[in-house]
Amino acid sequence: MNKLKLRNMLDSFLLEDIGDQDITSEAIFPENQTGKGVFIAKEAGTLSGLDIITEAYHLLDSRIEVKLHFNDGDQVNQQDTIAEVYGPVRHLLTGERVILNLLQRMSGIATMTSKAVETLNDPSITICDTRKTTPGLRLLDKYSVITGGGKNHRNGLYDGVMIKDNHISYCGSIAQAVKKARAAIGHMVKIEVETENEEEVLEAVQAGADVIMFDNRTPEEIKAFVSLVPDSIITEASGGITLDNLAAYANTGVDYISLGALTHSVKALDISLQVNDGEKK
Amino acid sequence: MNKLKLRNMLDSFLLEDIGDQDITSEAIFPENQTGKGVFIAKEAGTLSGLDIITEAYHLLDSRIEVKLHFNDGDQVNQQDTIAEVYGPVRHLLTGERVILNLLQRMSGIATMTSKAVETLNDPSITICDTRKTTPGLRLLDKYSVITGGGKNHRNGLYDGVMIKDNHISYCGSIAQAVKKARAAIGHMVKIEVETENEEEVLEAVQAGADVIMFDNRTPEEIKAFVSLVPDSIITEASGGITLDNLAAYANTGVDYISLGALTHSVKALDISLQVNDGEKK
Amino acid sequence: MNKLKLRNMLDSFLLEDIGDQDITSEAIFPENQTGKGVFIAKEAGTLSGLDIITEAYHLLDSRIEVKLHFNDGDQVNQQDTIAEVYGPVRHLLTGERVILNLLQRMSGIATMTSKAVETLNDPSITICDTRKTTPGLRLLDKYSVITGGGKNHRNGLYDGVMIKDNHISYCGSIAQAVKKARAAIGHMVKIEVETENEEEVLEAVQAGADVIMFDNRTPEEIKAFVSLVPDSIITEASGGITLDNLAAYANTGVDYISLGALTHSVKALDISLQVNDGEKK
Amino acid sequence: MNKLKLRNMLDSFLLEDIGDQDITSEAIFPENQTGKGVFIAKEAGTLSGLDIITEAYHLLDSRIEVKLHFNDGDQVNQQDTIAEVYGPVRHLLTGERVILNLLQRMSGIATMTSKAVETLNDPSITICDTRKTTPGLRLLDKYSVITGGGKNHRNGLYDGVMIKDNHISYCGSIAQAVKKARAAIGHMVKIEVETENEEEVLEAVQAGADVIMFDNRTPEEIKAFVSLVPDSIITEASGGITLDNLAAYANTGVDYISLGALTHSVKALDISLQVNDGEKK
Amino acid sequence: MNKLKLRNMLDSFLLEDIGDQDITSEAIFPENQTGKGVFIAKEAGTLSGLDIITEAYHLLDSRIEVKLHFNDGDQVNQQDTIAEVYGPVRHLLTGERVILNLLQRMSGIATMTSKAVETLNDPSITICDTRKTTPGLRLLDKYSVITGGGKNHRNGLYDGVMIKDNHISYCGSIAQAVKKARAAIGHMVKIEVETENEEEVLEAVQAGADVIMFDNRTPEEIKAFVSLVPDSIITEASGGITLDNLAAYANTGVDYISLGALTHSVKALDISLQVNDGEKK
Amino acid sequence: MNKLKLRNMLDSFLLEDIGDQDITSEAIFPENQTGKGVFIAKEAGTLSGLDIITEAYHLLDSRIEVKLHFNDGDQVNQQDTIAEVYGPVRHLLTGERVILNLLQRMSGIATMTSKAVETLNDPSITICDTRKTTPGLRLLDKYSVITGGGKNHRNGLYDGVMIKDNHISYCGSIAQAVKKARAAIGHMVKIEVETENEEEVLEAVQAGADVIMFDNRTPEEIKAFVSLVPDSIITEASGGITLDNLAAYANTGVDYISLGALTHSVKALDISLQVNDGEKK
Repeated sequence: MNKLKLRNMLDSFLLEDIGDQDITSEAIFPENQTGKGVFIAKEAGTLSGLDIITEAYHLLDSRIEVKLHFNDGDQVNQQDTIAEVYGPVRHLLTGERVILNLLQRMSGIATMTSKAVETLNDPSITICDTRKTTPGLRLLDKYSVITGGGKNHRNGLYDGVMIKDNHISYCGSIAQAVKKARAAIGHMVKIEVETENEEEVLEAVQAGADVIMFDNRTPEEIKAFVSLVPDSIITEASGGITLDNLAAYANTGVDYISLGALTHSVKALDISLQVNDGEKK
Repeated sequence: MNKLKLRNMLDSFLLEDIGDQDITSEAIFPENQTGKGVFIAKEAGTLSGLDIITEAYHLLDSRIEVKLHFNDGDQVNQQDTIAEVYGPVRHLLTGERVILNLLQRMSGIATMTSKAVETLNDPSITICDTRKTTPGLRLLDKYSVITGGGKNHRNGLYDGVMIKDNHISYCGSIAQAVKKARAAIGHMVKIEVETENEEEVLEAVQAGADVIMFDNRTPEEIKAFVSLVPDSIITEASGGITLDNLAAYANTGVDYISLGALTHSVKALDISLQVNDGEKK
Repeated sequence: MNKLKLRNMLDSFLLEDIGDQDITSEAIFPENQTGKGVFIAKEAGTLSGLDIITEAYHLLDSRIEVKLHFNDGDQVNQQDTIAEVYGPVRHLLTGERVILNLLQRMSGIATMTSKAVETLNDPSITICDTRKTTPGLRLLDKYSVITGGGKNHRNGLYDGVMIKDNHISYCGSIAQAVKKARAAIGHMVKIEVETENEEEVLEAVQAGADVIMFDNRTPEEIKAFVSLVPDSIITEASGGITLDNLAAYANTGVDYISLGALTHSVKALDISLQVNDGEKK
Repeated sequence: MNKLKLRNMLDSFLLEDIGDQDITSEAIFPENQTGKGVFIAKEAGTLSGLDIITEAYHLLDSRIEVKLHFNDGDQVNQQDTIAEVYGPVRHLLTGERVILNLLQRMSGIATMTSKAVETLNDPSITICDTRKTTPGLRLLDKYSVITGGGKNHRNGLYDGVMIKDNHISYCGSIAQAVKKARAAIGHMVKIEVETENEEEVLEAVQAGADVIMFDNRTPEEIKAFVSLVPDSIITEASGGITLDNLAAYANTGVDYISLGALTHSVKALDISLQVNDGEKK
Repeated sequence: MNKLKLRNMLDSFLLEDIGDQDITSEAIFPENQTGKGVFIAKEAGTLSGLDIITEAYHLLDSRIEVKLHFNDGDQVNQQDTIAEVYGPVRHLLTGERVILNLLQRMSGIATMTSKAVETLNDPSITICDTRKTTPGLRLLDKYSVITGGGKNHRNGLYDGVMIKDNHISYCGSIAQAVKKARAAIGHMVKIEVETENEEEVLEAVQAGADVIMFDNRTPEEIKAFVSLVPDSIITEASGGITLDNLAAYANTGVDYISLGALTHSVKALDISLQVNDGEKK
Repeated sequence: MNKLKLRNMLDSFLLEDIGDQDITSEAIFPENQTGKGVFIAKEAGTLSGLDIITEAYHLLDSRIEVKLHFNDGDQVNQQDTIAEVYGPVRHLLTGERVILNLLQRMSGIATMTSKAVETLNDPSITICDTRKTTPGLRLLDKYSVITGGGKNHRNGLYDGVMIKDNHISYCGSIAQAVKKARAAIGHMVKIEVETENEEEVLEAVQAGADVIMFDNRTPEEIKAFVSLVPDSIITEASGGITLDNLAAYANTGVDYISLGALTHSVKALDISLQVNDGEKK
């Protein structure tokens, strides 16, 4: 993860929450009153975004020290201490909400990805994300999918071709659409084609697609389609697949399953910060 | 909603997804090929963020026309047409994902808020949000809570005092903490105090809090606490309340119930864009 | 004061003045020639913005050391040494003007606020500011009012309702306007109503305003109006009040007096920087 | 004035005041309720910044129409109508404070400059500004000095050399300092030297300064110094000159008098906006 | 090309050149004096960046009309009229230098690319660029390579894996490096491996590279290496290839030749703007 | 050079190349694997931009240490070691391309400037640049001209008046144009007038231009024109002068020769980074 970009994002996120000042903490705590905070898991899950704690607190106050007890991708159990932080209480509290909002969301994505991998229970198939991320947070959303054991689909409209029904319909055929796209792109860019039936799958194979997606198909259909595609072309199942029906897609032979739900409907992992030692002495 | 701010946000969100170019659409569709798109609800819910369609498309291409069939806050049913858009197909497709990501998320928040209001079924109690929003999106998250029939708690650390256990512990008493805060703020800022037991509630009343929050309490406790607070002080229940147990808080007499889940674990409302008429003629 | 925001502001302010380079200092002083600078009060007043010295110099050159002899809010006399700075002469001089421009302005605001408090000489009445600040500097302007012994009115259009004649006229009555506003806002936001005569004051009381402002009224009128308002509602006098006539408002019983002049017509406090030891040795 | 830069500045200034929304106007006025506003001079003075009205309102709402009755630099009398604006009342009010804060400040600078020109009453001497502007507003401050009949000194540290005591002391002599600076700069940049006595003036002439400043000198001293400087070198009086003692500097023969007070201690010109026709019909 | 991004770039480029104002044009031309400008090719070449004219002038002054006589990618001869512009003379001149600087540079890149394609004279080999672009201008540099008949290599470090000697050395073998990379990336990302000898080429084939680059090899070596690579893997020659020796690489059978010189040492195409009709009438 | 501005530029340049992450280096090298890199000159030339190495690496990773073996302006020979860097290999490689792109370009400009000075071989004439820089890089382009032994012409449209044919034609005469410009500017700004024949030169002298430019004239014409201009006015030759014909302009007596080619058609100086010690131990 590009930390330069992360710091710029945290800068704007902290400004959003703090505005001109944290009026409560500035009113109550003197500038130099120090204390200790403990990040605790309130439920079990997969951690993601621990660097957020270090980087956000460093932006707020370079005197804050952070000790991480886990790494991104680690499993935590309820009541595990995730990290300890020491420094001015005022700033420990000022950064609390932004850090938790990000850490909970990122760990929520990692946890759901991890559950998806476990549910599918077929190591020959890779779980991946989509572009259904929350605007402004794609870096963090996609990073958390990897943390949870998944892989990233393309990052944006700029780094991969995805030929869908509109493109095919306008060009007249999959072959024409792939040809047109191939003529426009460089050799480091792949072309994926969305297909819905056997005819389209065969046409995509013929057209030289790098990746063929089976859109909104049943496990049975996918199994049949996969058999039509040579090994040199990657296959992907997408559309209508959730944690509830994911297990049925095991053993379909498909290479990738992409799940929009990993990022478009995130359930935050419950994590809290307890600042304990701010008492006057 | 401040549209100047919205436009700045959309500018950065579109850049995140498009990068240097939408390589697929630019390869397939000529600059001036026009078409029509239809935003369709794939499930029932409460709409929020319709201005996103207009403003995002306007940033991409001022030639795109948008006809909205609904207003924010309206209920839609499955298959309802939310909006129609006309213009260059290339740009209709380029903006699709960012618009849907926002519209689905915002409508998801509005829908959950609306369900919360309905579930509670006690018009004397107002549902409100928290600061558990996704960083960078607070404007949109909080707007959508209002759209769904809720109200906003404070916008950030800058526009309201919230005295919690740390502050009280450091100051020695609720009275001291409120006094210290009151001395620092202006007359347009309110002070809320978190309480957990009868003694604290009484102390908060005595201290002159503007709002008293009952943190993580049962409906019965809340009912008891409310009776200790004079009408001139607003009461709020918070912590551990979700759609599942919300109904139990009806008739507790509390003024507000704040729900972190409205924004920290958003389930996107399913909405799709169908671009129909991009065929060559 | 949010230092993260302060640093971002100083970054842009320094760029405004320095542009591509400080051609004089870069031509004259070698990069490593060090020296000492002394900030000196050229007239008596109340200091505000001392962090500016530290933060601005730290942005320019992390080697510069700053020793502050005073705190914000302290009174200085003519010839008092406010701060000493040590480091590369080139950068001591490069930052001089931006730092002085801010420090003089902020201390000017603090000084005028402090004079207002003294002039009024009625500790039961609090002096506060308005939104008549210089665009881009609200954080610093409002901070300086507090430093001088005043309080802040709302920070912007987003954190308080102010119902004026236009709103009342459109709604038909104060009661209608307050009702409409109350229906839109959350429970942490206060509503202030501007009034000009006894009838309006009574209407505002009836409507449940949180704060009632007496706009452009004489001390006598204000005294009369205050008596109409119950203790639970805060009163504010505003409009046409300056340092010249402020004393007449003592003992009117009003809670707050807001003065636009604190920030809209700032007289800079005269402070200079003397860089003494830049001689070659 | 660079309008592209102006629009960027107004964008950030409006965001500062509006934040997420103008909660009052959005609560009271429906989106399409239109009205009329009139900007009125509450005191006589010189106008500056009329484009602010047009550009700020255009950013907020492209439907707002602006009719200016005056041009920048025009004199207005009390009660003169400066401009009329038509459009959605909500946005007329939302933009009010930022526009007035800028217009009043800029017109205050223009008015003071205009008074300085009049007070000096010597057309052979030009009034000019300094770098004692409010950070972030230099474009507007310096523009307003021109509007009021003055001229601009250098814009920043990047577009002119100013050799002061520190530089001279480090280099050992004015001659050395000028030589060092001349060796570093291009042929479009001028060198100004600060002098305090006859010896220094003569040294600066000898050194080939383009401009010689007499720092903190009496009118008599300045008259004497001017006679030492050939016509091809521009002379400037600076330091300790205010509207109160400015008249004494007439007929000193100096070319320029620079006044920090034009921008460091601005007295806002009183201008108001009256929004009249927002009534429901 | 993403026009939203282009407009943001032009905004900052225009600010860089104009600063607070174009002092010459504002002094000479009244705001409404209109005229006509003609962009003329002073030498033959391939055009790129014509949208710059339209977008930059639109940012400066929406009244300026632009008529383009050519499209990007077109060949122009000396004295050809590229575009005509009509509008306020002041702004025609203010935008001149930024527009020409970009247009000349972009057309220079397109022209050199076009010459490379012609020089190579082997349609089975595609010319492509590298990441040796001028920082801040990658969008425009890479766009111009396409305009000139070339293709783009990866856009940055984020959208393609490039395994070089350092990576191989650290991992111990090409096989290990490719395996490690493949494990980290998604299925839309390709892996390219740099090779310098037959052994490495064979190892890269074995390791499953998507693209194999022959680094700094002679045409003969490349011919030999190509024969070792199956058709399903793309080959690329890179390093030490310039317009001078490019012809020798024809008929080597390689798929791509990447040329750093297309963008790292750009010779601007000579284009001028003649503003003809600014005379007073 | 303003380092605050430099850091902001490097921040955006690094983001352009890295995007969300350097996928290759993050896949291959563990976070803490350290190594050593050596910047080596692959051809002889004049160095410029060495601070880029330090500042860019510091932004990426504060643990990276940089040892510079040369200073800006120094000559290097082929194979000279320019700088050594130590730290995490991952970040040494991540920053490589941006640093080299800038360093090569800047050193290319310095080298060409240095060659121009040598070619001209007339120390009485100063080589200077123009505004034909690459947009976004003016700070670095102009800095490198100085590093190479040249001087800077004006930085932008804001810090010098340049009266060209359009202005003269509109005003009716050089005298009128100069008068109009002089009336608008302050005393720190110079006026340059472009001339093409003896009549215009004489008119410019008469009009009181500070600098007179001879546009696109032969060495003979320039010699003749120079003789018409008094010593107090600076002369400049511009237009159509390149390294090829520059020698002919020696001994023309002109003060400055400006060369657009110094920055509009930069040939990068070949510099490489060799990262040697990243092997696992």
